[in-house]
Amino acid sequence: MASVAVLGASGYAGAIAAMLIDRHPFFELAHVTARAEAGARLDDIHPRTRVPLALERWDPAVQSDVDAALVCWPHGAAAPAVAALRERGVRVVDLSADFRLSDRAIYEDWYGVHGAPELFGDSVYGLPELHRERIAGADLVANPGCYPTAALLALAPLARAGLIGDVVIDAKSGVSGAGREPTATTHFIAADENMTPYKVGGHRHTPEIEQELAVLGASLPVTFTPHLVPLAQGELVSCYVTPTRDTDPDELLDLYDDAYAREPWVELRDGPPGVLEVRDTNYCRISVHEDGRSGRILAFAAIDNLWKGAASQAVQNLDLMFGRDEREGLA
Amino acid sequence: MASVAVLGASGYAGAIAAMLIDRHPFFELAHVTARAEAGARLDDIHPRTRVPLALERWDPAVQSDVDAALVCWPHGAAAPAVAALRERGVRVVDLSADFRLSDRAIYEDWYGVHGAPELFGDSVYGLPELHRERIAGADLVANPGCYPTAALLALAPLARAGLIGDVVIDAKSGVSGAGREPTATTHFIAADENMTPYKVGGHRHTPEIEQELAVLGASLPVTFTPHLVPLAQGELVSCYVTPTRDTDPDELLDLYDDAYAREPWVELRDGPPGVLEVRDTNYCRISVHEDGRSGRILAFAAIDNLWKGAASQAVQNLDLMFGRDEREGLA
Amino acid sequence: MASVAVLGASGYAGAIAAMLIDRHPFFELAHVTARAEAGARLDDIHPRTRVPLALERWDPAVQSDVDAALVCWPHGAAAPAVAALRERGVRVVDLSADFRLSDRAIYEDWYGVHGAPELFGDSVYGLPELHRERIAGADLVANPGCYPTAALLALAPLARAGLIGDVVIDAKSGVSGAGREPTATTHFIAADENMTPYKVGGHRHTPEIEQELAVLGASLPVTFTPHLVPLAQGELVSCYVTPTRDTDPDELLDLYDDAYAREPWVELRDGPPGVLEVRDTNYCRISVHEDGRSGRILAFAAIDNLWKGAASQAVQNLDLMFGRDEREGLA
Amino acid sequence: MASVAVLGASGYAGAIAAMLIDRHPFFELAHVTARAEAGARLDDIHPRTRVPLALERWDPAVQSDVDAALVCWPHGAAAPAVAALRERGVRVVDLSADFRLSDRAIYEDWYGVHGAPELFGDSVYGLPELHRERIAGADLVANPGCYPTAALLALAPLARAGLIGDVVIDAKSGVSGAGREPTATTHFIAADENMTPYKVGGHRHTPEIEQELAVLGASLPVTFTPHLVPLAQGELVSCYVTPTRDTDPDELLDLYDDAYAREPWVELRDGPPGVLEVRDTNYCRISVHEDGRSGRILAFAAIDNLWKGAASQAVQNLDLMFGRDEREGLA
Repeated sequence: MASVAVLGASGYAGAIAAMLIDRHPFFELAHVTARAEAGARLDDIHPRTRVPLALERWDPAVQSDVDAALVCWPHGAAAPAVAALRERGVRVVDLSADFRLSDRAIYEDWYGVHGAPELFGDSVYGLPELHRERIAGADLVANPGCYPTAALLALAPLARAGLIGDVVIDAKSGVSGAGREPTATTHFIAADENMTPYKVGGHRHTPEIEQELAVLGASLPVTFTPHLVPLAQGELVSCYVTPTRDTDPDELLDLYDDAYAREPWVELRDGPPGVLEVRDTNYCRISVHEDGRSGRILAFAAIDNLWKGAASQAVQNLDLMFGRDEREGLA
Repeated sequence: MASVAVLGASGYAGAIAAMLIDRHPFFELAHVTARAEAGARLDDIHPRTRVPLALERWDPAVQSDVDAALVCWPHGAAAPAVAALRERGVRVVDLSADFRLSDRAIYEDWYGVHGAPELFGDSVYGLPELHRERIAGADLVANPGCYPTAALLALAPLARAGLIGDVVIDAKSGVSGAGREPTATTHFIAADENMTPYKVGGHRHTPEIEQELAVLGASLPVTFTPHLVPLAQGELVSCYVTPTRDTDPDELLDLYDDAYAREPWVELRDGPPGVLEVRDTNYCRISVHEDGRSGRILAFAAIDNLWKGAASQAVQNLDLMFGRDEREGLA
Repeated sequence: MASVAVLGASGYAGAIAAMLIDRHPFFELAHVTARAEAGARLDDIHPRTRVPLALERWDPAVQSDVDAALVCWPHGAAAPAVAALRERGVRVVDLSADFRLSDRAIYEDWYGVHGAPELFGDSVYGLPELHRERIAGADLVANPGCYPTAALLALAPLARAGLIGDVVIDAKSGVSGAGREPTATTHFIAADENMTPYKVGGHRHTPEIEQELAVLGASLPVTFTPHLVPLAQGELVSCYVTPTRDTDPDELLDLYDDAYAREPWVELRDGPPGVLEVRDTNYCRISVHEDGRSGRILAFAAIDNLWKGAASQAVQNLDLMFGRDEREGLA
Repeated sequence: MASVAVLGASGYAGAIAAMLIDRHPFFELAHVTARAEAGARLDDIHPRTRVPLALERWDPAVQSDVDAALVCWPHGAAAPAVAALRERGVRVVDLSADFRLSDRAIYEDWYGVHGAPELFGDSVYGLPELHRERIAGADLVANPGCYPTAALLALAPLARAGLIGDVVIDAKSGVSGAGREPTATTHFIAADENMTPYKVGGHRHTPEIEQELAVLGASLPVTFTPHLVPLAQGELVSCYVTPTRDTDPDELLDLYDDAYAREPWVELRDGPPGVLEVRDTNYCRISVHEDGRSGRILAFAAIDNLWKGAASQAVQNLDLMFGRDEREGLA
């Protein structure tokens, strides 16, 4: 058994992370924290978790008596909490963007000043299907963004094979991706029966996708455009790749099969995936297609943005960090 | 006054077309037809139309006593009805695909045998913003597909300027696009909280988009992928253009302003459009963006797939054919 | 022509009211006001209105140069604005609750201190199907609440006939009824795929329903429970009446037919109504049924809570106040 | 370990039942059957189940080699299959209506001829919170209808206390309750943004509710009206009880607390429940209120119509029949 604190458990991802830890056979949920809602019980705020713990106010001296922590705070705020936890020897999966980028200048371009620069470079990018061994040995894992998770899983086999000449990523996400804060955008009347692109040309997941594609061998600027669609949880990325050379469908299927046939949380499909098929799960469903007319390769990936795109992937990472089977607590 | 028959008024687009004609100050709704539901009143089947007419079974000898007809039948079935109407001198807007393509071989590749080959080539492609004068003089207008409407309006200024080196069109549509037939796909439980690509690499609107882009000066194969999203009416196309040369934002805005500033049914916007903004209207909302990082041009267009993508555009065409202001009956 | 100001045009009902006035053949939209969003154009905030006017800050000295005003403010805030307008001779339809109740003590029990007690009792309750003549002669009309509109139209024929021994009103409304303020309740993630009763035993529309039922001859406490359902606009009331004596279906149909056959905005139906059938209209659809087993009478009414339940009914009232056909501007 | 066949696993409830058995620590999923889709794999038709079994065509000689069966067929069709299974000694939970009613005449009034009249009266009504002991000793359990499950749990404490003088039950259900068959009613365009009462005065769950209320001591005709609301899974019943005598809130809370405080699958709440809180679970959430003004008692219950209203309650019954903890396989 290992004890776990979930910081920021009143948010959508934090609540699911707390629920998964609470039901986990190996981990024990020791603390859940929140700011504004401290004092309330988690299952009053998020009934579906059925976690009867009271939310505590974060105090490094109190909640650091654990083996591990999942930090579900916004970027900027997360870094100092992570630093405090690491100082006390707590192993951390950070769900914010603070430790995902390896280049501090790029971080600061997109996010501003970093809250714990001394830790910069200490983290492992927590996409298990790409970095399983390094995650297993890490004390600080940066849980990927939801869009990078789906985009990288869709593109990794092509990137490794040197096939990506150029790529357009058109992504669509449900409204939970916008967070629990009530805003004009998340109001039911604004989102229902609507869909729209947002942050055109400037979404912060762009450098994260580019960094990890480069690690896989594809150094190029990507065109990445997210869209808001009227559903609660679910994310679909549609990747349009101009290949560096001719391919054929069999070669593509082999590439994806080699990459994912043994992955417990990736499901390869012949036809394009729907987000409902992976709702409330850690699965990523992927299909790859050759467009005979244009010569392009099309790869689609569907995830639940709050699960594989956040909370359940964090638990998958934690499983790996503690030497557990990465299906444990998630099946 | 001119009398109008709407064939296929029991479908979604047909019902709206009948409603618009019924409320139109110049046109008079003389007949509405349906097959299975003949005998029923249109406002019993489609209450929102408030059209109290009984649906008649199509009989060329009966419903051809009109000045014009809107044919809202599926491709293949439409062509013979159109031929029968044209023989009797009735002016026609055909909402099917039967008269959209100018190359019969391409038609037959994508749709099979043509039901009235003698009329092949007699029609005008009914996108008023591109072909206004020719529509005004036409007796047979082929109403564009919903995706081509949005995609062509988004891309036309770039195509005319010779700027399209390559293009990816990622399109998203509400469920009404799949028609009124109850199917596994249109079942609420399949569509709700879901989204998925469909007809990957093979949607029949592809040759239509390519034909009209070529007319505008951009002969190239396009990558076009539609997606189903959980809303009733609304369509968004996201176009990713690799330009043939460098441009700057001002040049792009000028191109779009020149094309659309005086168009009554196109709304240019700085920010990306949402489909709810054009719901139940004939408007197409467009924005264009330069992605500084990749050099790509991004153009977005939002329409209501049943209105500007079908029924209201048919009425706009009819207005033009009869020398009326193309805002008449639509404002 | 008569000039009209819409106060509070940035809210949902206010925006629709402004749109309807803007398109009205007799009325002219002179001013639209808002507090936080003063300076912005209405069609930027509510694109579907297509009203290009700038929102002004409310100033009695400025916006009172009109023949009439629609006041779309919350209760409490509305009364002083109404008083200022009436002082300057402006005819007013007030969409708040401030002038609906005729008994000041009851008002203060449910709403607190009244902001313009000197006007108490000067208003006419603006449900045209019940009070048409008095509305036509009024200078101050209190537009009914959405639930009372539907409930009273469903129950009026039974109340007048002395048939209501007891009544349970189970009401369901879409999320727009909760207003434009982003809150935990109106967040897409809270409302989507959810439904729940709210304000059990204490909704402020209760005394309004009771007052008007009493006017019709049925003085009794009602059990009224609203529920929130996951749709944007639409309201359904299901009324369960224990009758004072035996009735039969023919008698019931006659009662409703007598009451509504000539009403332009009430649609009697044999089968129960759906809210989609009246979406974006001023119609109220009603059906009445006798439950043979229990002896109860069931009456259902469906309206669009923002239209017949607020904005379009306000215009219907304004039409009557200015001697216009009450279909004008609404068909 | 006990082996289980799920008949009719291609329907919504059947698929969830198969999934729950497949993941159950004690039961083993031996067969899944379907008619039209025999041969296909269940996880191709219902991906969320992740059950990789092939659907078999029902043959009593083949699938009766099990310890138990869940029969998820429509009423009428279910009875002969249940008889065939019982003949071979298989313990059965039948999810149809065929064995819920104890009075054959009432069954035939509402459902027509019974398919296995020799078994009439052999079954136990499978609402564990009411009939736990009898279920534990039963070989044939009739799983309750979704509406009766919620209504009876909401009303049982009042019925037992002799408090129900009269009752109106207004029920609302998501679209999955209408089954997997694509119809005009289940089409996304018909259901989305809509709500409507249906089967007014004649829903077949009425005699089932009355039968079980009578067992609890409340013999009276109930007024029961279901409504369709635009969500996938979830059911809310709002019960309006005219009490036989005065009560007070404390007495009511004591009654419900006595009934449910130790129930693993009932959650008593102070405020009214929302269906999202019980989505994808076996929980029933209940609140009870006294309406001081009218004297009525209001009781609300929320369930997931496919889970506690069908599949998971069937597994709860199976747990009891096999002497297992009724939380097993459901937590």
